[in-house]
Amino acid sequence: MRTIDLNSDLGEGYGAYSIGDDAQMLSIVTSANVACGFHAGDPEIMADVFRIARENGVAVGAHPGFPDLWGFGRRRMPYSASEIERIVAYQIGAAQALAVYAGHRITYVKAHGALGNIAAAEPEIAAAVARAIKAVDPSLRLTAIALSELVGAGRAQGLDVIHEIFADRAFGEDRQLVPRGRPGAMIEDAQQAAAHVLAMVEARAVITIDGTRHPSPIDTICVHGDSPHAVALARGVRQRLEAAGVVVQSFVPTSV
Amino acid sequence: MRTIDLNSDLGEGYGAYSIGDDAQMLSIVTSANVACGFHAGDPEIMADVFRIARENGVAVGAHPGFPDLWGFGRRRMPYSASEIERIVAYQIGAAQALAVYAGHRITYVKAHGALGNIAAAEPEIAAAVARAIKAVDPSLRLTAIALSELVGAGRAQGLDVIHEIFADRAFGEDRQLVPRGRPGAMIEDAQQAAAHVLAMVEARAVITIDGTRHPSPIDTICVHGDSPHAVALARGVRQRLEAAGVVVQSFVPTSV
Amino acid sequence: MRTIDLNSDLGEGYGAYSIGDDAQMLSIVTSANVACGFHAGDPEIMADVFRIARENGVAVGAHPGFPDLWGFGRRRMPYSASEIERIVAYQIGAAQALAVYAGHRITYVKAHGALGNIAAAEPEIAAAVARAIKAVDPSLRLTAIALSELVGAGRAQGLDVIHEIFADRAFGEDRQLVPRGRPGAMIEDAQQAAAHVLAMVEARAVITIDGTRHPSPIDTICVHGDSPHAVALARGVRQRLEAAGVVVQSFVPTSV
Amino acid sequence: MRTIDLNSDLGEGYGAYSIGDDAQMLSIVTSANVACGFHAGDPEIMADVFRIARENGVAVGAHPGFPDLWGFGRRRMPYSASEIERIVAYQIGAAQALAVYAGHRITYVKAHGALGNIAAAEPEIAAAVARAIKAVDPSLRLTAIALSELVGAGRAQGLDVIHEIFADRAFGEDRQLVPRGRPGAMIEDAQQAAAHVLAMVEARAVITIDGTRHPSPIDTICVHGDSPHAVALARGVRQRLEAAGVVVQSFVPTSV
Repeated sequence: MRTIDLNSDLGEGYGAYSIGDDAQMLSIVTSANVACGFHAGDPEIMADVFRIARENGVAVGAHPGFPDLWGFGRRRMPYSASEIERIVAYQIGAAQALAVYAGHRITYVKAHGALGNIAAAEPEIAAAVARAIKAVDPSLRLTAIALSELVGAGRAQGLDVIHEIFADRAFGEDRQLVPRGRPGAMIEDAQQAAAHVLAMVEARAVITIDGTRHPSPIDTICVHGDSPHAVALARGVRQRLEAAGVVVQSFVPTSV
Repeated sequence: MRTIDLNSDLGEGYGAYSIGDDAQMLSIVTSANVACGFHAGDPEIMADVFRIARENGVAVGAHPGFPDLWGFGRRRMPYSASEIERIVAYQIGAAQALAVYAGHRITYVKAHGALGNIAAAEPEIAAAVARAIKAVDPSLRLTAIALSELVGAGRAQGLDVIHEIFADRAFGEDRQLVPRGRPGAMIEDAQQAAAHVLAMVEARAVITIDGTRHPSPIDTICVHGDSPHAVALARGVRQRLEAAGVVVQSFVPTSV
Repeated sequence: MRTIDLNSDLGEGYGAYSIGDDAQMLSIVTSANVACGFHAGDPEIMADVFRIARENGVAVGAHPGFPDLWGFGRRRMPYSASEIERIVAYQIGAAQALAVYAGHRITYVKAHGALGNIAAAEPEIAAAVARAIKAVDPSLRLTAIALSELVGAGRAQGLDVIHEIFADRAFGEDRQLVPRGRPGAMIEDAQQAAAHVLAMVEARAVITIDGTRHPSPIDTICVHGDSPHAVALARGVRQRLEAAGVVVQSFVPTSV
Repeated sequence: MRTIDLNSDLGEGYGAYSIGDDAQMLSIVTSANVACGFHAGDPEIMADVFRIARENGVAVGAHPGFPDLWGFGRRRMPYSASEIERIVAYQIGAAQALAVYAGHRITYVKAHGALGNIAAAEPEIAAAVARAIKAVDPSLRLTAIALSELVGAGRAQGLDVIHEIFADRAFGEDRQLVPRGRPGAMIEDAQQAAAHVLAMVEARAVITIDGTRHPSPIDTICVHGDSPHAVALARGVRQRLEAAGVVVQSFVPTSV
């Protein structure tokens, strides 16, 4: 029997602004990556998501990003690896405190946006993210894109690594996500997305765009929460997985 | 034998900006209240202060303030008591994580500036600050101005309250700090400041400007770090206390 | 023949965040109040709105607010009247420059949110807003809620005052807008809103909730852009006015 | 008879933070480059500097930088040339409005920090800065490092270019400023700095570190305001220039 986690980036609003339908997504996913106030999120939003996640039995992770509200964390900001350690540590702590405040508990960390991209591709940044987690709380799991640099960096720090694939993104022949904007990068149809990830879960491998299988644990599937059809796609993926006998559940116990 | 803690607000810079001489103050005080990035401070500065404090055996506390970098946390911002809970919780967590990152440990919380003033005077705000600490980590001590509303609020939450007086500020007949700008509010001479606090430490009482004694534990003395003569005043107060046989030490063990 | 202007608060997004459907509203209104980056808006959004407004023959005004992105400018921030002068002046200038950059021209100023509310009610704040406009460019018109303190403050500075009523808000017996949340404050039906403002335009008077007429010029009608039915309501109001023979056009020439 | 302008970056504080001694520098220099609120400066500080500059007969320029208060505008932020146009336009307008508010007038623009560095070296960024100025107000002068890419970009837009050298920085053999940290980059002695710039003013040429003369107009000398000896160095340079018969005055009339 296969089990798999479904994660989504949530709590991405700021004050009067909102992105995505957090309440709906929290009824579908099993893990919520919660923005920590640097690229999105504020204490009100964070505490709300933590509370609803607790009520729904959804695990919560810190989702640190660059301090770039204007750019929503999607731009590479000019911070050194060493500075990134402190930026990540700060955000993990803030999320931990608000999660506990809301009766929940942070169990993992996933880097957001541009920070996630460079942590996946650059060993020095990957190591910085892993060191920050290790320093703050070595019991925290590290969500890392399967086959990425971050996997090894997390293991080198002794962290429990969660291997991630994406419902709506393809892996290229170079074993990295096909950059947005390139042909085949995005998978927008729910059934196609579901089939895409189910194949990988069953194969226990990343399947690149050319069909090659690269063995890897597959622990969690990211479903995005901010596209127009996000809720439908997430629900479709979950239903298809369950129909195939895959148990959709968090990789951590979610009762606090 | 009397013992007393000396605390100061440190880490109050931001990026290229600095206020006060943190390194000097960390060689004099026994507790450092560290700004958490909302009214001052950034992850680099926070981690630096935590590291130097650890090296010097100085205890560290979270020093949360309003999200108001422009106003340095000195203005009352329009947040409800409930929102203040989350604002304080967020900042405590951020400070805890960076302290651990730097090999140190947050052992108390002291509210900054306008937040500190209203927490001292208004029961609803005092309760909010105390609830935030209780929710995040009930082992954290709460530094509260002696005789203020925050003392009772902390006790009501079961927190260990640290009673604070100020080297350079007088208490009025209403048992509250004389507002800055009023006659007698500020004590700028180091010897006068030292005598002022020594009398209270020995009397185990707050002595108001009219000479009345109001019994209260006196656990810590705040020496400000941001005035031109801050270092000299802090050093003078410490020397005078020690000359009188008072042991100047933190209220918590500082080896991590 | 009556003429009337229709204005709406636009450009209220920030980076990846958006509020309302600017493109649709710019096909309906004749004046766009453009957020200036303090409570919402950024240079990209501002320049875009100015460009589309120019293409559509829509007049543009600066819509300054408190520096409070988190609170979307809806909270009263602790600034003095004197500081408000500089805050408003800064934002007017930024808007003027980006309007010219985009081939358009700022012709009026309307205060946003909490700043607008206090400028309507408090003579000292009203005077500050008027002085800022006068100092920066006395040819700028001042949009002021009809019968409010801001009308007199603008006139006292020699400014050309534009008298404003609201499609979806009622005036109370005290001649001020009924606060949101009170019974009768909001008018959500497009036909009712249209009838509400048409009556005032034809009467050349503010008609309060009890039916009393208070003579006042009526120069512009605010239609909000951020509610779910904003576009439909704005379109309905415009159609009803035109059907009644009212010419809907800006109070300024809009060709640059 | 030679005439030369002395400029300095001023108004670089933020709220309670300050950098440099603006009042002293405004008694020495003839042009003040005023931070516009993105990397430093706030409306209070801006208006104050404009007012004092007016009283002292000092010309004022907008000194736009990247939106990076944390990094004081010294880091290259990830904005495209097109976005930089809007960022610069916004800041020019804000400065213009507050200058007029304070009874003064912006007469030039000089890019700050990392933005200044890349505008000097990269044609695309240089063109963006020049286009922003041209679009907002083509009567504004453009201060450009002598021999830099920005000189040509300004001329291409028809702007009046002010050629700048630095009292405390050497030009390398590549005709660009020697990067900080390299040997010979900084000139810290006031007499040496004075001799350095006087030679260039008299030669009507940039003299690189190897002694080569590159003919160029020399219109203004930048003296930094934020180093410990800034005031002494600025005063020393001015005195030496005047002793050599050079008239130190702004390149624009400064009575408004």
